[in-house]
Amino acid sequence: MEKIAYLGLGIMGQGMVGNLLTAGYPVTVWNRTADRCTPFVERGAKQADTPAQAVSDADVIMYCFSDDAAVEEVVFGKDGILAGCNEGQIAVNMTTLHPDTSRREAAAYAEKGVKFLDAPVFGSKNEAANGGLWIVVGGEQALYEQVKPILEVLSETTHYMGGTAMGASMKLVGNLVVASQIEALGEAMTLATKAGLDPEDVLGVLHVTDFKSPIFDGVGGGLLKRDFSTNFALKLMLKDANLIAKFAQDLNVPTPAVAATREVIKAAVNKGWGEENASAFIKQLEDQAGVVVKKG
Amino acid sequence: MEKIAYLGLGIMGQGMVGNLLTAGYPVTVWNRTADRCTPFVERGAKQADTPAQAVSDADVIMYCFSDDAAVEEVVFGKDGILAGCNEGQIAVNMTTLHPDTSRREAAAYAEKGVKFLDAPVFGSKNEAANGGLWIVVGGEQALYEQVKPILEVLSETTHYMGGTAMGASMKLVGNLVVASQIEALGEAMTLATKAGLDPEDVLGVLHVTDFKSPIFDGVGGGLLKRDFSTNFALKLMLKDANLIAKFAQDLNVPTPAVAATREVIKAAVNKGWGEENASAFIKQLEDQAGVVVKKG
Amino acid sequence: MEKIAYLGLGIMGQGMVGNLLTAGYPVTVWNRTADRCTPFVERGAKQADTPAQAVSDADVIMYCFSDDAAVEEVVFGKDGILAGCNEGQIAVNMTTLHPDTSRREAAAYAEKGVKFLDAPVFGSKNEAANGGLWIVVGGEQALYEQVKPILEVLSETTHYMGGTAMGASMKLVGNLVVASQIEALGEAMTLATKAGLDPEDVLGVLHVTDFKSPIFDGVGGGLLKRDFSTNFALKLMLKDANLIAKFAQDLNVPTPAVAATREVIKAAVNKGWGEENASAFIKQLEDQAGVVVKKG
Amino acid sequence: MEKIAYLGLGIMGQGMVGNLLTAGYPVTVWNRTADRCTPFVERGAKQADTPAQAVSDADVIMYCFSDDAAVEEVVFGKDGILAGCNEGQIAVNMTTLHPDTSRREAAAYAEKGVKFLDAPVFGSKNEAANGGLWIVVGGEQALYEQVKPILEVLSETTHYMGGTAMGASMKLVGNLVVASQIEALGEAMTLATKAGLDPEDVLGVLHVTDFKSPIFDGVGGGLLKRDFSTNFALKLMLKDANLIAKFAQDLNVPTPAVAATREVIKAAVNKGWGEENASAFIKQLEDQAGVVVKKG
Repeated sequence: MEKIAYLGLGIMGQGMVGNLLTAGYPVTVWNRTADRCTPFVERGAKQADTPAQAVSDADVIMYCFSDDAAVEEVVFGKDGILAGCNEGQIAVNMTTLHPDTSRREAAAYAEKGVKFLDAPVFGSKNEAANGGLWIVVGGEQALYEQVKPILEVLSETTHYMGGTAMGASMKLVGNLVVASQIEALGEAMTLATKAGLDPEDVLGVLHVTDFKSPIFDGVGGGLLKRDFSTNFALKLMLKDANLIAKFAQDLNVPTPAVAATREVIKAAVNKGWGEENASAFIKQLEDQAGVVVKKG
Repeated sequence: MEKIAYLGLGIMGQGMVGNLLTAGYPVTVWNRTADRCTPFVERGAKQADTPAQAVSDADVIMYCFSDDAAVEEVVFGKDGILAGCNEGQIAVNMTTLHPDTSRREAAAYAEKGVKFLDAPVFGSKNEAANGGLWIVVGGEQALYEQVKPILEVLSETTHYMGGTAMGASMKLVGNLVVASQIEALGEAMTLATKAGLDPEDVLGVLHVTDFKSPIFDGVGGGLLKRDFSTNFALKLMLKDANLIAKFAQDLNVPTPAVAATREVIKAAVNKGWGEENASAFIKQLEDQAGVVVKKG
Repeated sequence: MEKIAYLGLGIMGQGMVGNLLTAGYPVTVWNRTADRCTPFVERGAKQADTPAQAVSDADVIMYCFSDDAAVEEVVFGKDGILAGCNEGQIAVNMTTLHPDTSRREAAAYAEKGVKFLDAPVFGSKNEAANGGLWIVVGGEQALYEQVKPILEVLSETTHYMGGTAMGASMKLVGNLVVASQIEALGEAMTLATKAGLDPEDVLGVLHVTDFKSPIFDGVGGGLLKRDFSTNFALKLMLKDANLIAKFAQDLNVPTPAVAATREVIKAAVNKGWGEENASAFIKQLEDQAGVVVKKG
Repeated sequence: MEKIAYLGLGIMGQGMVGNLLTAGYPVTVWNRTADRCTPFVERGAKQADTPAQAVSDADVIMYCFSDDAAVEEVVFGKDGILAGCNEGQIAVNMTTLHPDTSRREAAAYAEKGVKFLDAPVFGSKNEAANGGLWIVVGGEQALYEQVKPILEVLSETTHYMGGTAMGASMKLVGNLVVASQIEALGEAMTLATKAGLDPEDVLGVLHVTDFKSPIFDGVGGGLLKRDFSTNFALKLMLKDANLIAKFAQDLNVPTPAVAATREVIKAAVNKGWGEENASAFIKQLEDQAGVVVKKG
């Protein structure tokens, strides 16, 4: 089995490394806050002191960070991945990031003889832990096919989207849909509540129609319980909304509804809800609507 | 079995009456354009010349019209339902309409001793034809239970939402979600297309993730084929978007994203696409994005 | 001089009647809350008990109410203007209202042989008091010329805009601009404040450039002093924003920015600021931006 | 008099250099396309081959470029200003740019002992040519006072806004207002036109009220004549709208109306109007409204 270096042990990384170990892959881990490595070392993983060290003898280098700036630092920075990688290796970036960063990575790796895929994932904590992610991949198709067995350990489905940056692009396109759906649910629920409908009944309808979506069940359930504990933090959704806006700007695509949604997310973060779950931006819609809800 | 009067033989009404006849109910039909009654008369329905005549000896009076103005005319107008109905009957309005119109109907029927439910439906042509609608009902719960067996002939699920106008309210809340999802899909697809992604691949991803929705498959499929033939006309979706805006105004609920979406739908109708399928408003997003697509 | 009946003694009506009396016109006043008539009676006005009585022997019937519903009641209602008016009279409606209401009024007056102008005004408390309004008029041009000397007592300028409802239409078009400018100022000031600029310095720049406007001085001055005392109540601006939205809906005109602005105004009213000055909706923008300002 | 190096001879630079020469300042000019220097050389200016050469013996270094990327290249690049400047000089950047770029410039100049002001200008072609700009300045106040006599040659007013980047910040705040006003005018005019009002009459009203603005006269006049010849190109306004969006993002300030406006500007550029005057984005509003106007 391929030797895997996995860098970045946030919520997503922890889930993925757990599944790689379960599947029997030899894994070397690195994380900025080193003590997050401990549980994996106890399960047999090696721990590296720097990104460069982590990747030095890997076959496949995988990483998932919180944003472009972290990629910048860990890949391009001092003792970074580029400083330690070698010809013939494969790098797979699973971070949600701007497609241009993927393009810069691909070019930098190519100079070192390293092949590169951008392979961001849909799904959050639970899907990462259960190997149920949906992975969207950009890069050479033959490389995708080669890495696919590893990705399948982590995922329910994998999708080849085209050349370099097409995985990153698909991720932003999908996140646009996610933000739009949470906004739609929030507008629907505030309107329903003020109209005198029972929120639980409304979710019951949204559960069965042809415009139903699992996200309405998930976010709606949390909403009913006033449970905004974090699967995916609102501050990260704001970061993604900003990435989507930049992406739409670069391509000069008008996206009026998600642009309006971004302004709501900004306001929610200003209210201090950035560390709560992404769905907490519905509370801003409630605030604007003058909806008073009982705290669960 | 109850004698049913059914008024309004548009796309939805035709499907519903067909299923009522199949289920063995005796049905009297009326439609403004009388010749739409013929196929149902051939299947055993009686045909009435006026709404008043149609309802005179019915147990249950059902109707589904295109808008509030039609309800106004057929219910309250000359030779209308109120002129012909009698104490002890039950009226069920399946039209998508403003909740205030439901309230006025309920009050008017009450004066005649007629009980009333507002019971709009989700789903369009196919669901109506196949008895697969989702029906949301407002009015007295006991009355709902009484009428439920008839509604179940037409539907996959029925939902009791609360007192008078709660069915109508739920319908507008749901339509807000529908419009938001088509907008989200349109923004996603124009962004994806300009980014160089293959639209079919994008729909493949949207088909499996936890933000998937049957509406993305349906609308997306039509989009790929450039098939905007009508299940539900865009001009009717504009009418609904205007109803939602009025409803949100009456309750003073800010709904920034669907407000932005309404402006897009307006522009699409100005382009002359009002008679095409509702999903045709995505063409306006393409126009704004400068996306040129091959015509199927 | 023409005998004038003036109905409606709100902030605007009080200013206008004062100027009519100063100019020497014989005026009969009516107001729902009768004691508002007292100061004008003391200055020589006659007081009527009902609208019908007020207009019975007038040459020119003028009125300015808070909304379409008030027009509906006072013009069309029991003991209303239509019940008391006579052939040969002239009616001038100065209310900000939907153009369709003007059209209905014109038709109803025509049946009684009464000529009609819709003549809403720009300006608020101070302009009304000082005879400095800007009046926009719809109806027959000859009639406009006939009434112009009276209007000039009240105004800085008068503008003939075209046939019936063109005055009402122009008023809504102008109010769209007003709402847009207050929104622009609010967005500019919250952005400036968070950037560390001094609000007073910013207003100094907005005072001199080629995008300057008196409204920035007026609203901006109140903003600096945190003075939101009422010239024109926010709840009335929300009413106007709703009228503009209906007008844009009837003409199917996309107005994306003012549509976004309406959602902000709604939220501000939900915060309880409806009785404050219209400019108070900037507080909602501050709230969304997390801008904390010292209370004046 | 101070020796001035002026770099960047676009529409703005040409006007400013002309006025500096008229005032008697010794000026050395540089422009990427060298032949733009010729008319100024004929009037006595020196011409330099590189930015570094241009600034080498200047007292005051002034420049105005089209965007941040040009600043990046000419200031920080090979043979750029930083390569040629010397301790004791003063640099004044008049470009509309992101405040962070000003901060980076200030830091880089400080290392060379050069003092720095960011001093973007309001006004376009005519104001630049006539010395009628409005200049907003960030940096040390004493430095501002020192340079003020030179700035006054170029301007109607100068405004000290605070420390480094406060000039750049004020410029973006002002441009937000400009974009909002053009949008408001466009929405107003399309609504008015569809309502049957005469656009010239509407502009007559906007010319006198307390929400009037010189920009409505200027842009409105062009609109009536269908004259979209360039004072300030739409593609530059899109660049500015994108800068404003980035600035609002960095400060996390919701700006819903100008966010909606940006989407309209994007669409207008997609229609191919980027080289026309900024006001040409009103044509996109007309397109969305289905307004057909006669071409001038």
